[in-house]
Formats: sequence, C-alpha cells, structure tokens
Amino acid sequence: MAAASESPVYRATTTAPVNIAVIKYWGKRDAVLNLPTNSSLSVTLSQRSLRTLTTASCSAIYPNQDELILNGKPQDIQSSKRTLACLSSLRAHRKEVEAADSSLPKLSALPLRIVSENNFPTAAGLASSAAGFAALVRAVADLYQLPQSPRDLSRIARQGSGSACRSLMGGYVAWRAGSLEDGSDSLAEEVASAAHWPEMRAIVLVVSAEKKDVPSTEGMQTTVATSNLFATRANTVVPERMAAIETAIQNRDFPAFAEITMRDSNGFHATCLDSWPPIFYMNDVSRAAVRLVHDINRAVGRTVCAYTFDAGPNAVIYYLEKETELVAGTIKAILGDKAEGWEGPFYESMKDLSAPGVALDKVDARAVDVLKDGVSRVILTGVGEGPVSVNDHLVSEKGEVLSA
Amino acid sequence: MAAASESPVYRATTTAPVNIAVIKYWGKRDAVLNLPTNSSLSVTLSQRSLRTLTTASCSAIYPNQDELILNGKPQDIQSSKRTLACLSSLRAHRKEVEAADSSLPKLSALPLRIVSENNFPTAAGLASSAAGFAALVRAVADLYQLPQSPRDLSRIARQGSGSACRSLMGGYVAWRAGSLEDGSDSLAEEVASAAHWPEMRAIVLVVSAEKKDVPSTEGMQTTVATSNLFATRANTVVPERMAAIETAIQNRDFPAFAEITMRDSNGFHATCLDSWPPIFYMNDVSRAAVRLVHDINRAVGRTVCAYTFDAGPNAVIYYLEKETELVAGTIKAILGDKAEGWEGPFYESMKDLSAPGVALDKVDARAVDVLKDGVSRVILTGVGEGPVSVNDHLVSEKGEVLSA
Repeated sequence: MAAASESPVYRATTTAPVNIAVIKYWGKRDAVLNLPTNSSLSVTLSQRSLRTLTTASCSAIYPNQDELILNGKPQDIQSSKRTLACLSSLRAHRKEVEAADSSLPKLSALPLRIVSENNFPTAAGLASSAAGFAALVRAVADLYQLPQSPRDLSRIARQGSGSACRSLMGGYVAWRAGSLEDGSDSLAEEVASAAHWPEMRAIVLVVSAEKKDVPSTEGMQTTVATSNLFATRANTVVPERMAAIETAIQNRDFPAFAEITMRDSNGFHATCLDSWPPIFYMNDVSRAAVRLVHDINRAVGRTVCAYTFDAGPNAVIYYLEKETELVAGTIKAILGDKAEGWEGPFYESMKDLSAPGVALDKVDARAVDVLKDGVSRVILTGVGEGPVSVNDHLVSEKGEVLSA
Repeated sequence: MAAASESPVYRATTTAPVNIAVIKYWGKRDAVLNLPTNSSLSVTLSQRSLRTLTTASCSAIYPNQDELILNGKPQDIQSSKRTLACLSSLRAHRKEVEAADSSLPKLSALPLRIVSENNFPTAAGLASSAAGFAALVRAVADLYQLPQSPRDLSRIARQGSGSACRSLMGGYVAWRAGSLEDGSDSLAEEVASAAHWPEMRAIVLVVSAEKKDVPSTEGMQTTVATSNLFATRANTVVPERMAAIETAIQNRDFPAFAEITMRDSNGFHATCLDSWPPIFYMNDVSRAAVRLVHDINRAVGRTVCAYTFDAGPNAVIYYLEKETELVAGTIKAILGDKAEGWEGPFYESMKDLSAPGVALDKVDARAVDVLKDGVSRVILTGVGEGPVSVNDHLVSEKGEVLSA
C-alpha cells in the first residue's frame, strides 16, 4: 500500500502459479458455488516458468466501478458472475475487519482497479483461469489485509474457477470435495509442501493449436448428466485414488504416483468419451505422447515418467529431476529444434545433454513422427511454491496501469 | 456330397456373412470356452457385399490329418486350439448321428479338407474371423448333415471366435451371455429377421491401414482385469441397452437404435481407454467420422445416421435406405474419388446422386479434411441373411483344391 496524495492509491501485488491436476476435477454438484462431484489433487508448478502477476488497487480517484484488466485488455466485470462473487466475498471480509477496528481506512467502499498479466501466451493452451483467479483473490486479500488463511481463501477462489482454489498453495495440493450444501467444506489444503518432494519435474508438450472441442465447464456438465460410467468414477474410483496418491506423495514413491496419475487421466478422458454427445480432448498427438511415455518406461525397465492430460490435447509429463536425461533428454532428441521452449531455469541441467537418454529405436517410430509434426513448444518446469507477494506493481502510485 | 470313386469325396459348401455389433462384445468370463462378460447384438451384413465362402470336404483319399486352407494358404490347424475345439464338437455330433443310423457313412472317421476364401481383402480391416468360423461350422455341419439348429451350432462357432456365433443367422442377432459354467446357454438368437427391417444400410469407412494397437483377444482381457469402469458397463449399462435396442429393432425405431448404437460404441472405447495400459482403437480419422455423423444429424434436424467402431479405427455408419442421399450422398461428396469402393449392388440407388445430401458448409471443415486424407475405401452394404448353401465348391469332385 502506498498513499501518494490526499486520495491515496492502495496497492498489493502477488504472483500465483499454474497447477496441473493428477487426480482430475471433472463434474460439479453445484454449478453456482462451483462444488465438485469429487476431490482432486494437483502439483503446483514453479513460478520461475509460469505465473500470473496481479496488482489489486483501490482508490477514491478511480471511476466508481470496479475494473479488471487482463493482459492489457479491460474486462467486462459485470458480466462475469464468478468475478463478482469473488470480489463480493472479499469485500465482505474487509468490512468485518473494518468493523472490528474503526481506525482502518474504509477500503471496502473504494472502487477496485485490478491489473493482471500472464507470462505465458494464451496460445500455450494452459488453463490460465486457475492462476488468474488465485492471483486475483490473493492480491485483493493482501490489499485488504485480510486475516484469512490460504485454506479459507481457497473457498473464495473456488467460486471464480474450481481449480483456482488449488493455486493458492504450493507443492502438492488436494481440493476436498466436501459435502455441505453451502460449500463451506469444499476447499484446498496442502498435502505436502514443495520442499517435501522438490525433485518433481514436468515437461509440457504443447500441441499445435486446434479449436477446443467443448469448453470444460460445458463438458463436465454433459458428462455428469449423460455418462453411464461417471458415477462409478466419482463415487468409487477417485476416493480410492486420492488416498493412494496421498500416500505415494508422503512416501515420495514415484512409480505409484505415476501409475495413479496416468490411470486417472485415462479414466477422466474415458468418461468424456462416454458422454453424450461424446467429448474428445486427446488427439493423435496426445496418443503418441502416451505411447512414448509407456515406451520410455518399458525401455528403462522402471517407471520414470507419467503423462496427464487436461481438457485439451497438451501432454504434461511428470518425472524426477534425476531422470532428466532419460525423460526430457529423450524428448529433446525427438523434437530437437522442431519445438520451441528449450530454455529457462529448468533447462540449465540439461543444456549439455547430447544423446537421447533412451535410444530412439526403443520407442515407437510412428509416435516419434507424430510428435515431431504435432508438438510446437515445450515448457520445462517443476513443482513450486504458492503465491508470493512482490513489489513490481502493475499500477503506479498514481493509479496508472503499467505493463509488466 | 458327391461320390466320384470307391473312396468318394464328400463335400458341402456354404457362404457366411460378416456381422457388425451395435452392442459390443468385450470381455470374457471364460477364455477357453469364449464365454462373454456381457450379451451383445449385431446386424448381419449382406453377403452381396462381403462374404466368406467355405467348402468342407472329407475323404479316405486325403492324408490322415485335417487340413484348412484359408485364402490359398494352408493353416497349421494343430496349433489352433479354437479350430480344433470346433471340429471336435462337430465330429462328436456326427458320431451321434452315425450311432443312431448305422446305414450312414462313417464321415466322422475321415480326414477333413476345408477350403475357405473371403471376397474382401484382409487389408480392409474387417474382422474376418467371425465370418470364417461361422462358415467353417456351417459347412462341416452341412457335410455331416447334422440336425442341430443355427442356435445350437452357434454354441460351437462361439468357441472358434466369440462373435462368430452371431454370423450363423441373418438380420438382427443377439448373443446371450448366459450364466452356466459350461457355456451351454451362451448362444446366439435372431432378434428380428432381415425381412423385419430390410431398409437398414451400412457404409464402412476403411481407414488407411495402421498397425493395430492391441489384438482384441488380448485387449479385452486387459480391460476386464484393469478397468475400474468395466464392471459398471458389463453389469449395469449393457443389460439396459440390450433391452432398449431390442425394442427399438422391434419397433423399427431408427433414432433409438442409432443413439444406443453410438453410445455403446463410445462406452466400449471408454473402457478401453480406462484399461491399464490404455488401449486406443479410434484415431483422429475415427473422431472425424464421429463428428461428421453428429453434424449430419444436426443439419438434418433428426437422427439419420449412427456410427460404431470395433477394435480398430474403421467407422461403420448405419442409416436407412431412404436416407441414402443424406448420408451416403454426403460422404460421397466429401470423399469423392479419394476413396475406392463406390460400386456394387448397394451403389445402384445412389449412382445418379450429384449434390451432397447435406451441404458441406453444414459440417465441420476440419473433419472433412481429415476424412479426405484418412479414408482409403468405402464398402456399401446393408442388413442381410445368414449362411447359404451353395454349389460353387472350393474342392473338386476328386478332392483337389479349387480357387473361387
């Protein structure tokens, strides 16, 4: 916060991470409150690779309506019920704080100006809404100096975008489905910190853009309403997997973590295919990535990598740092310069690799060709921390919008 | 049968059809007896398009070991437990006949020479084993003049190849899973004759050959053993669909028939994807065919076509004869001369079509491109009759192997 004039501009800025689920969220039991049909679990990805930077500010000098500017573009905040729900909850909490201490400035009465930028192109096909809503909630909570914990705030972020609740924490994060009607027990909690198992790495294979088949909000409603197999997944399969993967994470048991991750991704996409009309997110490039991962594991003789796919064709492949040569090295040998993205902090350790970790004659030749043609970019990353308060504000002391 | 010398050559020849399931067989509860985990239902396809022609013969002049020649190639019959199981059952039935009437020649004691030819290339990717085993069982049963009904014989053919039991009858055929351990109640029965609903047509889109992912016998065992969703399919979903599609067939209700067919295909492939390791039979060309069918139905405003996929990427699209222009006509407009196969008896009625039934701007342009690139051949066919006795033997009166 900085007070630059008689009508000061209050500011708080935070970064927030992307998370990639290993037990997938798919299906709402309450569409307004964003309550899920099953619990889910994700790995928070390092903000050294991917992050949203958001400044929340408020001031009496602003026009009398909340503003939100995403990647340089003003958003129509009034038409986004989800954004309104988040801001309304945050303001209500600020009012409680102000009511308890009358010496505090009445920030809850001031219009907000929120400016947010991603450091990754939307074209990368990564769900930016999770990082975006997490950053928005965290930044406004910091601006309002709210006493709520990340766990409490996750309840608010969840109303913006379900999976956003998992981006309020680092490491390995569970979103408990909860059972209460008002959703008060549907929130995120850290299962293990990034420090508990810091060796987790991820390489994202960005598949050349194709129009998305069905938006995920619509898709999951279709699956819940029509798939004959979905109830088994939500009621039986996922609860068992949640328990098993939490144990795997506690024990740093990569083979168990990997198998559960892959099977849950497959099971999620199976219920999409079983929907009516059917929903396909994976394509032939995705299938080739599946094949490659199984072939690498087979060639190595143990499980060193695991794939997972969200509501799109991009593959996210998890592996441990010590297997960088076997996994990322083999992928680099396949994609070479045909894909961009061989750079950044997670590239350092593999800069000097020359030969593939796994000889390319041990992996399916057709899959190799399909990947070469279909993957346009990679993103090298790993497990990371939750939101961080920073001082590189996107709003000046005078309230002007800045660029990151 | 013909007796040409003191050691006569006895012969019987039959044709048998291909069938394409609309409720899929996937999963065995007994691998030796080929007993399925769930009932299934298929449409028998016309032998004017696709058929196996098989001559069964036996003679004392033959070498003292049963012989099987498929498409000109002698098979190692002794290494095929399934063929041996069929022949052994058929011989046992012949022995019963001979025991009851001592005037009959002791054919059961003579070596068999069985010659079989398909009129379609194996490269077409159509499961030829169903027609093959149905023809083998029917031909030997005719040679032996067995009194058993097609229903009884289906029990034998099932041991050769599960789905072969459905190729012993025409029209709309159910394979009842049965519940007895010895499999004696696991057999096929006609749900409705071809004459009951003769307007059913099918167009097969043969997708450019790719190595098959996993053979179906191995694949279904993997699914039963590993898919968390499979039990729900086998125990709950399929029994409901069997009842519903039989009603649809009785009522000649194409929209109901079509929706159940498409959903069952999707559900079957969903359990494949949910298997461990996952099994993919559909590829991007298959997905494009799914998209096209949904787009045609949407453009027309009612359900005029339905897709189904077996353990491979080929699409089989069902429609009624009166919708030939809308369905086959649109497909012809898309594929044009890029695909072979616009010929044969089922092509007559669409020879003079010039414009597509559905304007091509009403269907997804990307799907059209993918289909143009990926479909190498079409097969035009329709519902048809069961095996037919014929006289164009593939074995001469002297026992020599002939060519069809």
